[in-house]
Order: sequence, then C-alpha cells, then structure tokens
Amino acid sequence: MTAPGRPLRTAEVIAVGSELLGTTRLDTNSLFLADRLASLGIVLRAKAVVGDSREDLSALFSQALGRSDLVITTGGLGPTDDDLTRDVVAAALSLPLEEDAAIVARIAERFARRGLHMPEVNRRQAMVPAGAVVLNNPNGTAPGLFIDHGDRVVVLLPGPPRELQPMMDGLVVGALAERASAERLFRTTLAVTGRSESHVEEAIQPIYSAWRDAKPSIDTTILAVPGQIELHLTLRSSDETHARQTLANARDALMTALGDDVFSSDGRAMEEVVGDLLRARDLTVAVAESCTGGLLTSRLTDVPGSSAYVLAGVAAYSNTAKTELVGVPASLLEAHGAVSEPVAEALARGIMARTGADVGVGVTGIAGPGGATPGKPVGTVAIAVARGAESAITRTFRFPGGRAQVKYSATQAALDMLRRLLSQ
Amino acid sequence: MTAPGRPLRTAEVIAVGSELLGTTRLDTNSLFLADRLASLGIVLRAKAVVGDSREDLSALFSQALGRSDLVITTGGLGPTDDDLTRDVVAAALSLPLEEDAAIVARIAERFARRGLHMPEVNRRQAMVPAGAVVLNNPNGTAPGLFIDHGDRVVVLLPGPPRELQPMMDGLVVGALAERASAERLFRTTLAVTGRSESHVEEAIQPIYSAWRDAKPSIDTTILAVPGQIELHLTLRSSDETHARQTLANARDALMTALGDDVFSSDGRAMEEVVGDLLRARDLTVAVAESCTGGLLTSRLTDVPGSSAYVLAGVAAYSNTAKTELVGVPASLLEAHGAVSEPVAEALARGIMARTGADVGVGVTGIAGPGGATPGKPVGTVAIAVARGAESAITRTFRFPGGRAQVKYSATQAALDMLRRLLSQ
Repeated sequence: MTAPGRPLRTAEVIAVGSELLGTTRLDTNSLFLADRLASLGIVLRAKAVVGDSREDLSALFSQALGRSDLVITTGGLGPTDDDLTRDVVAAALSLPLEEDAAIVARIAERFARRGLHMPEVNRRQAMVPAGAVVLNNPNGTAPGLFIDHGDRVVVLLPGPPRELQPMMDGLVVGALAERASAERLFRTTLAVTGRSESHVEEAIQPIYSAWRDAKPSIDTTILAVPGQIELHLTLRSSDETHARQTLANARDALMTALGDDVFSSDGRAMEEVVGDLLRARDLTVAVAESCTGGLLTSRLTDVPGSSAYVLAGVAAYSNTAKTELVGVPASLLEAHGAVSEPVAEALARGIMARTGADVGVGVTGIAGPGGATPGKPVGTVAIAVARGAESAITRTFRFPGGRAQVKYSATQAALDMLRRLLSQ
Repeated sequence: MTAPGRPLRTAEVIAVGSELLGTTRLDTNSLFLADRLASLGIVLRAKAVVGDSREDLSALFSQALGRSDLVITTGGLGPTDDDLTRDVVAAALSLPLEEDAAIVARIAERFARRGLHMPEVNRRQAMVPAGAVVLNNPNGTAPGLFIDHGDRVVVLLPGPPRELQPMMDGLVVGALAERASAERLFRTTLAVTGRSESHVEEAIQPIYSAWRDAKPSIDTTILAVPGQIELHLTLRSSDETHARQTLANARDALMTALGDDVFSSDGRAMEEVVGDLLRARDLTVAVAESCTGGLLTSRLTDVPGSSAYVLAGVAAYSNTAKTELVGVPASLLEAHGAVSEPVAEALARGIMARTGADVGVGVTGIAGPGGATPGKPVGTVAIAVARGAESAITRTFRFPGGRAQVKYSATQAALDMLRRLLSQ
C-alpha cells in the first residue's frame, strides 16, 4: 500500500454472484462504496453485476481495469467452486496464487472456536495472488485482498455488507486516500415541494448555469422522486474551507430563488422537518385521515421521539367512523360528499376537539382504483390543516398514479401544508 | 419483429444514467426485467450501470452484444445532450439515424395537449436507427426501440418505471416470446411466517434435496425478507402441463410440512390474504394501534377495495387517546402499563365497541429508540385480536432491529394473528 504515483481518479465496482441477477435482490453494496469513493474524490464510472461465470467475470474485469484506475469487486470469495473472484483476478493480472499459512491458521481457529474442524475447501480462501495485501475479516472467513498493480489498484471485498463495510472503512479507505488526488467531492442537497421538476428547472436554470463555468465548478442535478424534487449540488476541490463556503453560497442562492418551497437543505425528510417545527413551537398534532388510511400518521410517527407531539391519528375509512370517532356532522357528509373541503376541515377540527391537539389535519379523497364519481376522479384529495379556532388552510388536489402513489402523494401534500402553516 | 432463427437464450441489461451511480438510487428496473426474462426462459447473464458517457456506454454495449443474444438498455432516451443511448447503439450497430415524422407529431401533440409548444430539443427523441421498430410510449415523450439485428435483438427502453413497465409488457415480451426457446421458466413462491429461516430450512431440507436430481430438477431458494420467509421454486421445461403439475406437487409437499405457517402460495401479500378472509366471511375490522402509529391500518388499506371491510383505525399514541378515542379504562393503563396484554385486548375490544366492527385488533409496544422500561426493552409489543365477545388471542413479542423494523414486524405479526383467527 505504498507508491503514490498517478492519483486514483476513476473507479468501477463489480458485484459477483448469480443471486444478484434474480428478481429480488439488488447489489446495495455499491451504494455504500459509491459514498466512500465520492468522499475520496474518486469518480464511480460504471458498476456491474455478473453471475458466477469465469468467462463473464474475466471479460468485465479486464474491461474495467482497462479504463479505470481502481476496480473493486464484491463477493465470490467464499470457499466453494462457485467462488471465482480470486482465481479470475489473479489470472487477469498474471499473478500466481500462493497459499497463505497465516490465513489458514486464522480460518482454522475461527472454526475451532465453534468446536469445529476447518473443512478442506476453506483452504481456497487462503490462496493469495503474489504481492497482494491480505485484509483481515473479523466478521467472516473470507479475507479481502488489496492489490497494488502499477498505476492501477484492485480491491477484492467479501459480499455480505457486515463483512464488507468494516473492511472498507477500517482497511481500504485509508490506503486509497494515500493514492487518491488531493481533490475531494463536497455535496449538498435541497428538497423542494410545491413545484414540478420543470418549474424548478425554470426558476434555477439561470443561477446554476453560471456555476458550470466557475472555478471550481458546481455540478447541479435535478431529481424528481415521489413527493419532492431534489437538487444535488456537488463540487470537486482540494480546498475544504473554500469548497464548503462556495456550496453554502450556492445553496443560499437557490433557496432565495425557490423561497419556502425548499423544505430541507440538510437531508431531513419532510416528516422530520414537520416534527422539528412542532417541537420548536411546543405544539401537539392529531390527524383524521380517510383515503390515506393511516399512512399520514404512520409517517409522522416514523420519527424517533414523535410521541412527544403526535397525540393520535384516526383512519376514518367509513362515514360512520367519520361521524362517530371524529364528530363530522352527518349533514355535512350528506351536503358535500365525503370527499370535499368542508369535510376535510371538519375532520381537522373534529380530531383537534376530540384529542385536545393544538393542530389538526384532515384528509379525505379517492385513492382508487374504485370510488370515482362524476367530477371527482381517482386521485381527488381534499386536505385541511387547522390551528386553534382560526387559520385553517384547505386545498383540493388531483394526484396522478395508482393507489399507492395517490396515498403517498396525499401524505406528502398534507405534511407540506402543515409545514407551511407552522412556518407562518 | 419477425425471423425466428436462433432462439434467444441469454440477455444483458444496461442501465444508463449518471444518477444511478450515486449513493442513493439503485437500478430497480433490472429486477422487473429479470422477472420478465425469466418467464421467457432467457437467462440474465450480467447487468451494468453506466453514466452518461459515450465511450463507456459504447464499450459496455459492444461487449454485451458480443456474448449475449439480447441486450436491453434502460434510460438515456430523453431529449437532452446527456441522452446518448440512441446515438451510441446506432453507431455500435452501424445503423444510420433518421427522423421519424410520426414520432415528432406524437410528441408535438403531447405538448399541445398541455397547451405548450414542443421544444426543438425534443426532435432528438424522434431519431430512429434504420430498420428499428418504434415502441410507442403513452406515458412519456421518449419512444422505445426494438432492433432485430441478425441473430441478436437490441431493445431500448425509457428509464422511468411507469414508462418502461407497460412498454415491456405490452410491446416487447410478446415479440421476444416469438424469438425465445421453447423452454420456459416456471415458478411458484410460498410465503411463511412464524418460523425462522433456519427452522424453515430444517423442516423442508429433506423434501427439496430430492428434487435437485429429479428430471426436470426443481431449484429451491430460501429467502428471508422482513416479516416473512419466502420459498422460491423454479423449474425449466418445454412441457407446460407437466411443469405446472410438478411444481404444484412440490408446493403441496412443502405446505404439508409447514402447515398453516404458509400464508400465501399465489403471490398475495399478507394484507391481501387477510382482506380476502374478511371478505369471504363477510366481516368488518377495526384497529387500535399505538407503537405502529397507523402503519397497520395503512397496510390493511393498501388493498384496493378494502373500504368494504376496514371501518376505521385509531393510532392512539397518547394515553389520553387510548382512553378518549378507544375507551381503554385509565385504571387498566395504571395497573398494567400501556405496553401490556390487558391493554392490547382492551384496545381491540374498545375499537370494536366504538365502530361496531366484527373483528378488532389492538397493538401496543415500544418502537424505540426511547421508551424502554425495566423488563420492557425496545421491541416489546403486545398484540390482541378479538372476534365478537369471546375468542381473543393475545401475545407479547420482542422484535429486533430499529424503529422502522419494529413497526413493520409488529404489523406483520398482527396481520398474521388476524389471519390465524379468521382461518379457525
């Protein structure tokens, strides 16, 4: 782990294992590794998943090594015939494999602690390409390997996250830092509601386009995720103080342009932002929700410590529940229909009265696929937020998508209305 | 989409987009595609994610096309300079790009419907490699492309799942089926609760190990996912009748071994199974939940049509809510503490009384990280299910994990108790 030489600038990750090519499991290790690489200022150029095939792994590995400074493999270090990573990498680098007596001893000891003999197959895990540094694995039998190969570095990590993560943080990140450039990646994220992706783009395009040509340049990505638009700002620099100040200025410029549509600039989720506002104002909240069926209350209570400000939520699915549990007058349901702004407000005020909460939220709508009526298609949702006797805000939305999307969008809109009410 | 020729046996998926190389987003489209490919008997050999780089996409695409019969790309079909997939694939296949007037008209009409002019950049989305079949996209502006290339097939799909999925199912699967081999993959999945992964393994190992050497052999995978153990049985065969019968027999053998711990053998989720039981018995349900904070009711109402049997759910977070909204006697809370089986049963019976539901569920516990008391650590949850005046079942659990995991595990346990009560 010596010889600085040319700094490591680009990387690729190859996950090995046929089970990662099925219909249920994704390679989540790559997210963890992407984070560590970004912190080191190393660009993740591509990532791949390959089955337990010598030929395919060999082709992908050689291609990656041809164009990137660092190749990290995950998985395929086990003791069985399926576990090919060591062999394939050693062959691709033309390094002979040698048995490492210290590894054999460690694995044997691991078995001995559980009163077992080491199976002969586990000797495979002690085969080390000549010149590789062995990375001890206190959480499993498969040691990792760190191979300095001229101007390239190759790292072989075990697949299970609880083995890979401590090995990466404890033994690999430091060694890579010595070989990385002095430049690091700095990041900040803003989360926005109340505008479409293209309206966000329209508002900030004049601002961020100027950053592209600045030195150091700030890279801006706009990402639409359910219920919010995210702005990811990244900056590559070797001057941490200057980089952080530049990003903070950029963030402030965007926040000025977008106003209170920015609900988070520090990674907090919407329910955390709302929780912090309630806590700061020493207010309690209660919810009466129909079409969201408990999801709004569940999101509010996802926040640790939320029992300090969430008193109760009623999922009043039937009209009887709306009248009996929340006190919505039957005449109001009759006059306006269950999905209406007057009923949303009555839900908000009713649950406040029943629970003594300072703030009330009412949600009523049609999540679909059934339930649409003339003039009220699937996705129609009326939401009210009320504080004390006055200052209720009521809105009607038409959310696109299927049942799950309508439910989620409605909870996000309700939380956002609550946030705006509490920010007044 | 003609010319059978050599059947398609192997495939690769390449997801295009720098945003998929960051620390937050995974390429979930590949799971969906893996499922459809498996149904077609096509083996997914590798998958990759590549940024918006012409050089890297070109290298990965050419390598994939060199070893696999089918290459599917996702993403990179948008209108901006970043969107390279069309160009790179056309160049790799040496096909000239031509503007398709019908696509231009469709995109222009899409904008016109929203009262907008089509931006000039969107013309890029109308460029089609010579000979490609255009796949209409009713859910976005980017059309897909299907390219028959000798003994290879290349399919370009848009990135957003709500555009990709209907396009794959409606326009691509059928065309691929014509080109796939006669062998198909047949699958069945059993979902199990109430046993650990190793106890499931212990019970069924003698059964499934015999299937490995049968012809055709059945492949068995045991997967622990939150709240349940899944058994995936797969079988490759060109004889559909025989394959389905073999799998049905295998499923029956496992169900006999595991008894009523198997809650689903047809892909239904726990909340659907419970919903179907309630509907079949013409019963209504109401929930009073504390530590799960609305999540149990939300899961019950995730099922379309659940308004027919879910009357209401109360998330009674505070003790006042438990007494005022659900009628739990304050003396009971005092005597046993909020987290206790008597309180769980009082929640279940109280919400039945308040709503007139036939079945009641009560959940009370400590989701953490705070709230633990001596003898009641984080994860302690008491659950009661009651039907009519008698036959209440009450249990106390200790769930591992953080707040989100405890919440989810508690809802799964409550639904499972409800299922067993309704199955009696």
